[in-house]
Amino acid sequence: MKLNIAVLPGDGIGPEVTAQAVKVLKAIAMEFNHVFTFDYGLVGASAIDKTGIPLPEATISTCEKADAVLFGAIGNTKYDIDPNTKIRPEQGLLGLRKTLDLYTNIRPVIAYEDLLNKSSLKKSQIKDTNILIYRELTSGIYFGEKKLSEDGNTASDICQYTRHEIERIAHLAFQAAQSRKRKLTLVDKANVLESSRLWRRIVQELAPQYPDVKVTYMYIDNAAMELIIKPRQFDVILTENMFGDILSEEASVIVGSIGLLASASIGKDHAMFEPIHGAYTKAANKGIANPIASILSAAMLLDHFGLDDEAALIREAVDKSLKLHITTPDLNTKYDNITTTKVGDFIEDFINNPDETNLN
Amino acid sequence: MKLNIAVLPGDGIGPEVTAQAVKVLKAIAMEFNHVFTFDYGLVGASAIDKTGIPLPEATISTCEKADAVLFGAIGNTKYDIDPNTKIRPEQGLLGLRKTLDLYTNIRPVIAYEDLLNKSSLKKSQIKDTNILIYRELTSGIYFGEKKLSEDGNTASDICQYTRHEIERIAHLAFQAAQSRKRKLTLVDKANVLESSRLWRRIVQELAPQYPDVKVTYMYIDNAAMELIIKPRQFDVILTENMFGDILSEEASVIVGSIGLLASASIGKDHAMFEPIHGAYTKAANKGIANPIASILSAAMLLDHFGLDDEAALIREAVDKSLKLHITTPDLNTKYDNITTTKVGDFIEDFINNPDETNLN
Ligand SMILES: CC(C)[C@H](C(=O)O)[C@@H](O)C(=O)O
Ligand SMILES: CC(C)[C@H](C(=O)O)[C@@H](O)C(=O)O
Repeated sequence: MKLNIAVLPGDGIGPEVTAQAVKVLKAIAMEFNHVFTFDYGLVGASAIDKTGIPLPEATISTCEKADAVLFGAIGNTKYDIDPNTKIRPEQGLLGLRKTLDLYTNIRPVIAYEDLLNKSSLKKSQIKDTNILIYRELTSGIYFGEKKLSEDGNTASDICQYTRHEIERIAHLAFQAAQSRKRKLTLVDKANVLESSRLWRRIVQELAPQYPDVKVTYMYIDNAAMELIIKPRQFDVILTENMFGDILSEEASVIVGSIGLLASASIGKDHAMFEPIHGAYTKAANKGIANPIASILSAAMLLDHFGLDDEAALIREAVDKSLKLHITTPDLNTKYDNITTTKVGDFIEDFINNPDETNLN
Repeated sequence: MKLNIAVLPGDGIGPEVTAQAVKVLKAIAMEFNHVFTFDYGLVGASAIDKTGIPLPEATISTCEKADAVLFGAIGNTKYDIDPNTKIRPEQGLLGLRKTLDLYTNIRPVIAYEDLLNKSSLKKSQIKDTNILIYRELTSGIYFGEKKLSEDGNTASDICQYTRHEIERIAHLAFQAAQSRKRKLTLVDKANVLESSRLWRRIVQELAPQYPDVKVTYMYIDNAAMELIIKPRQFDVILTENMFGDILSEEASVIVGSIGLLASASIGKDHAMFEPIHGAYTKAANKGIANPIASILSAAMLLDHFGLDDEAALIREAVDKSLKLHITTPDLNTKYDNITTTKVGDFIEDFINNPDETNLN
């Protein structure tokens, strides 16, 4: 297969983890006789530094021409600290999601057997957790009208949803549930928000089309608790943009490190794959950033094109790296010298030689 | 001291847990020679059933005349399931908060030594956690304009904040931090929301007035993770209405049961005290509801009037009940016959006879 992949390394640890994912994709192409080409683009704080804006036209067109986008991370503490800046790195990421209409963000939360004791949660609590979060990604309060009064003393954001926006992702979430444990949990705040009531109403309307899926409804405050005390009760979680942002980052505690969580952002015409972690400016260029989330995002990219064996091989390599403690310091209590690149090298080697790779 | 307390038992388990708190307050009045009087009012689903509306005028005037309000719980699954109902129990609670202008909601999160192994989190993780959450309670997306289009296909909620709304609670949170570990964490989503940037700007402006307080800023998604992986890093958390709702319920996992979390909602002229848990309709009238959150809310009520010894005695009684496993089933692995009333009785007895009370 021929795939043209737009690579947007972004800020902070973005470039170093993305480099590992690209390396892994190249190994896959070699091993399976595919032709993957990579076109690079600027985004985020690094784009602001070089071009003055967080999402240059050139980057958009690189992404629009590509079959898929591999995204690193975005953000820089220098912008976080100043709430007055008009130009912000996040506009790059949000702009991409909107421009490419990537309305469905899929975030798998899987408790790895070999990492159960890395979690803050008790092992018995998280064992066998396997959740798929469907987060709406192009609407809600992220994209509603924002206002700041002349005098700067009143600020507002609108959270708005339309039937169309809810239906399209809801169908995908129902379908995902059908191919899994057939449970769908809608997370909302329907006891307070009008927009949440619209979500609830539409999901209730669609449910009869998926009679094999058991639908439950949970308020976001309650879900934030239930996710920790009974994570195994969830199969597919469907939720709006902001709640999905919160729940998915919270869910990283089940997995043991946010450095492991990958995601796919899918639209009708485009698809983007990115770790859920941020830019961690402080950790940049130290070789300590965990590349697994980016590498697993590359695996999701391969899934998207039906390259199942290829994706499976990456996951096997990742499992092996975890089993052998070839992991960055966030997860490693055994070795203290495993760098970002070393993890990438191990996974690359495993792909080249699945039967021989071992710790050396 | 003379105190007139408005009691609003509300729905589900509200009445049974509130009854225990009232019993405990009566014991305190007896022991310390205070005169506490109690006026009851209807609110929530039970008010809808009897009067057609969730917050009758009579209830409002009972509360306005009272020195303090003791609130039970609100909600009923029959309303939750139908997103089309126009009259909802929650309007009772939200209406009270707004009418009494209870803008500061204070939610303590304390890891009890005797309950460390009840948490889903590892003991080492949560030991010594002591967080005070300051949640803004009368503004934000809860109270912003809500719209549903004619055709029912578009719904929206506005999240709005003014300088005044932010400043008044921020000052209280800074002051609380001064009397504790002098750390304040503002939780927001300033990388996306205009309203969050106003919060961040104002807190930054106020900070120089509290030079002894170390201020940090955290995005809500990140905070939802950090709360679980490093709860001890927090002292006072300041946040807007919705984020406070989510974080405080999530924080219950640290304590071991949501049945333990009390709260105070304070305004300029009024104060209300309530468990953070909901109505749990399913658990009502079974004697299994944990009354501790309501009893500790009564202790916060006493704190509010400077009755420190009285509040301390309640807390001592609660500690003792936990130590002796006089707890409802949510926490009890030793005895299976301790009911809501039995827990209340034990605490009442302890207050009457602090030196003699024991399991019998
Ligand atoms: C960087 C930020 C704007 C982004 C979001 O809130 O969506 C991030 O937290 C994420 O989850 O991808
Ligand atoms: C019942 C509901 C409206 C309420 C809220 O969201 O504020 C509750 O969850 C709480 O935290 O007191």
